[in-house]
Amino acid sequence: MRILGIDPGFATIGFGLITAERGRVHMVTYGAITTPAGLPLSRRLYQISCDMEELIGKLKPDVISIEELFFNTNITTGIAVAHGRGVILCAAEKCGVPLYEYTPSQVKLAVVGYGKAEKRQVMDMTRRLLGLASVPRPDDAADALALALCHARSRTSRLPQTSDVKETV
Amino acid sequence: MRILGIDPGFATIGFGLITAERGRVHMVTYGAITTPAGLPLSRRLYQISCDMEELIGKLKPDVISIEELFFNTNITTGIAVAHGRGVILCAAEKCGVPLYEYTPSQVKLAVVGYGKAEKRQVMDMTRRLLGLASVPRPDDAADALALALCHARSRTSRLPQTSDVKETV
Repeated sequence: MRILGIDPGFATIGFGLITAERGRVHMVTYGAITTPAGLPLSRRLYQISCDMEELIGKLKPDVISIEELFFNTNITTGIAVAHGRGVILCAAEKCGVPLYEYTPSQVKLAVVGYGKAEKRQVMDMTRRLLGLASVPRPDDAADALALALCHARSRTSRLPQTSDVKETV
Repeated sequence: MRILGIDPGFATIGFGLITAERGRVHMVTYGAITTPAGLPLSRRLYQISCDMEELIGKLKPDVISIEELFFNTNITTGIAVAHGRGVILCAAEKCGVPLYEYTPSQVKLAVVGYGKAEKRQVMDMTRRLLGLASVPRPDDAADALALALCHARSRTSRLPQTSDVKETV
């Protein structure tokens, strides 16, 4: 199974593709889609849309594993990330690839075995599990690989996403 | 000039098209794009994308006037609306239509003359300015017409949107 992990955003979108077969995982490729600062948000979103469709067409994933959004910190940044994430979900749907969403805690639990692990621990375990010489750069790509690993290692949370947002808007 | 107002969302997206020539405004059409509850968010976003492109292709606006997002209330709903708004901005960009963004206060100021006007006042002034017999339904469509009017009546805020989000993600 080819699993494409996605760390959503609008300035930098990390991606990481792994294969998972009979408990064995293997890193295929990773990287990041970036959009130039200074361009209007709509232009950047359209570029993300085009790049995501091209990436999915090239990498041919069986599933996409993407991070859920939580905002305890900067709401302005969070809103912009949600714009980008919407475009990414839309591109995945257009390409017909099933989507799975995981919270940061689920990723930590699946990769490190502890839902409150430090980011550094997640990165190091991602490196080890994939047999890499060093932690992938940028961080967004490492996060994306961790998301792919999370899907590969999760036994309980493989239900496809459903719309659980209240109908108030 | 054909101005398409958009009230962003993911369950209901209001739209309203007006023409503005030499200080005269005229309502052309209005309505709402809706997506079925229960469908996965990605499916709803893709439907919004397709419907928006079709709408823009049919209505041929010269500009789009869309509401900026502010979240003082429900952050979960806000995140979902931002997903939808991202897809809408992306569709507008793909269709090559210039985008203008207005805050709720700017809309109130332009339509009612008072930045803290009540929603009911905005709706009634929208009806009057467009010479309509009754306030358009649903509310999302009336909000969209108010956004279109805001663009028509604004003299100071017609600069195209720029990317002013911090590069921290």
